[in-house]
Amino acid sequence: MNRSRLIEIIKNKKSFLCVGLDSDAEKIPTHLKNEEDPVFAFNKGIIDATLPYAVAYKPNIAFYESRGSKGWQSLEKTMGYLSTMTGEVFTIADAKRGDIGNSAAHYARAFFQTMNFDSVTVSPYMGFDSVEPFLNYDDKWTILLALTSNRGSEDFQVTQHQLPSLLEKMGIKTICGRKLYESVIEKALTWKNSEKIMFVVGATQAELIGQIREIAPDSFLLVPGVGAQGGSLAEVARKGLNKDCGLLVNASRSIIFASSGKDFEKAAAEEAERMQKEMENMLKEKGII
Amino acid sequence: MNRSRLIEIIKNKKSFLCVGLDSDAEKIPTHLKNEEDPVFAFNKGIIDATLPYAVAYKPNIAFYESRGSKGWQSLEKTMGYLSTMTGEVFTIADAKRGDIGNSAAHYARAFFQTMNFDSVTVSPYMGFDSVEPFLNYDDKWTILLALTSNRGSEDFQVTQHQLPSLLEKMGIKTICGRKLYESVIEKALTWKNSEKIMFVVGATQAELIGQIREIAPDSFLLVPGVGAQGGSLAEVARKGLNKDCGLLVNASRSIIFASSGKDFEKAAAEEAERMQKEMENMLKEKGII
Repeated sequence: MNRSRLIEIIKNKKSFLCVGLDSDAEKIPTHLKNEEDPVFAFNKGIIDATLPYAVAYKPNIAFYESRGSKGWQSLEKTMGYLSTMTGEVFTIADAKRGDIGNSAAHYARAFFQTMNFDSVTVSPYMGFDSVEPFLNYDDKWTILLALTSNRGSEDFQVTQHQLPSLLEKMGIKTICGRKLYESVIEKALTWKNSEKIMFVVGATQAELIGQIREIAPDSFLLVPGVGAQGGSLAEVARKGLNKDCGLLVNASRSIIFASSGKDFEKAAAEEAERMQKEMENMLKEKGII
Repeated sequence: MNRSRLIEIIKNKKSFLCVGLDSDAEKIPTHLKNEEDPVFAFNKGIIDATLPYAVAYKPNIAFYESRGSKGWQSLEKTMGYLSTMTGEVFTIADAKRGDIGNSAAHYARAFFQTMNFDSVTVSPYMGFDSVEPFLNYDDKWTILLALTSNRGSEDFQVTQHQLPSLLEKMGIKTICGRKLYESVIEKALTWKNSEKIMFVVGATQAELIGQIREIAPDSFLLVPGVGAQGGSLAEVARKGLNKDCGLLVNASRSIIFASSGKDFEKAAAEEAERMQKEMENMLKEKGII
């Protein structure tokens, strides 16, 4: 999917909601467990119910992989179903892969060719040659981890690169003081085909989203961590929206496990609609729609 | 597998060779393509042929995943076969996963429970809570990416944290001058269960292995990049061997694709034996055997 089509979908649906398909086989409603493939049946139910409100779907690969090749079959069926809506919804493989050269090329093939995802999340740790094979695909997106929503983001993404206050007082600010996530964003934006890069920025880091917008004014940001993880949608939108919207905000558990009963589709739709309405107001406030 | 058993196998086989099962379906010998599962048939042939010389096997998950659930089936069959030798060979899932909390727990389950690997490679980018779920398993190992063998390792692992020479001249060395891979190793060694952590250090970085040994004298290092990628086994061993050996040196293409004909097993065995003999000499020189 290209950028203008993505923006079109956002404006049509008045939403920048991404539904995270963190479909833990142990947590899906009991009445689905007699289905041939309970996880796929669950995903299909969630997709059908939330489709009016969501612009993107994001299977979290970990929850499929833990069941081995059977889990991968559920994932393939889910993508097969989403592929019937190619161009209508944006699909994200939340895989956080990160390997080099030929290995990276095989991961890109897995998600872009074998399964036809529009995008995949990638870890930047190994540098440019671990990302390049993903960027070589037309109309496919690479979503680089930048500043994540977990507590461990402090271990390497932020803390290590901070300048000690003593040096800041001496006026030494830039020579070695870039935080790692800032370096990742700045460097990635110099790479060939960087217009097909998005960045993962956790909603719990809302106060830093404004700073990230200074480095990456035009980039789309994929923002997880709203809802169950405690990030504020209003705060994220206030700091993160740009003229094209520029945000995909993900909610997983708060939507897909809104009810564990037979009404799980209705409950998911209600929660997705609630978020969509909030987003519609924000898009109007900013004059985007 | 626990540490003492791993050291025992190394001493028994007089080898610290890991065979990388980068089993690209398009590169395996033509005569295998009529087998029910050509990739598994290839892996079984390679394992049987190299077993006297190798202490570890490392499927590179990318090469399986690019074929979707069918590739995962080949991987499961390969691990099923290796599991018949549990305690005799050390198995590594080269997956480079890196996600948080519950997602990380699902990845750990995929490789440690669903497939019974002894270890898995993990990216440190997201910090402690992305690694912790792997460390909670008894007798399982987490192999953290530290300093990789590719050119892109310069993008974030090394360059970003270097102190500018001006500050070094001022005697300011430690406050913000740690390279990222050094921070990763130092911090990881403070984590609970850190005795079950190994580190990935590329063979092309041999000159830095000596420095890494100062930070992590006792840790096992998984060293890819010997052979096709140009790293020197002699140099790696000289800088990296410790009293328990402390190294697993991986070779992939140079062994598994030593011949693309019907003699692929014989050719793989010969190349593995050549490396094992070299390693035996090094282990003797260091007084380890």
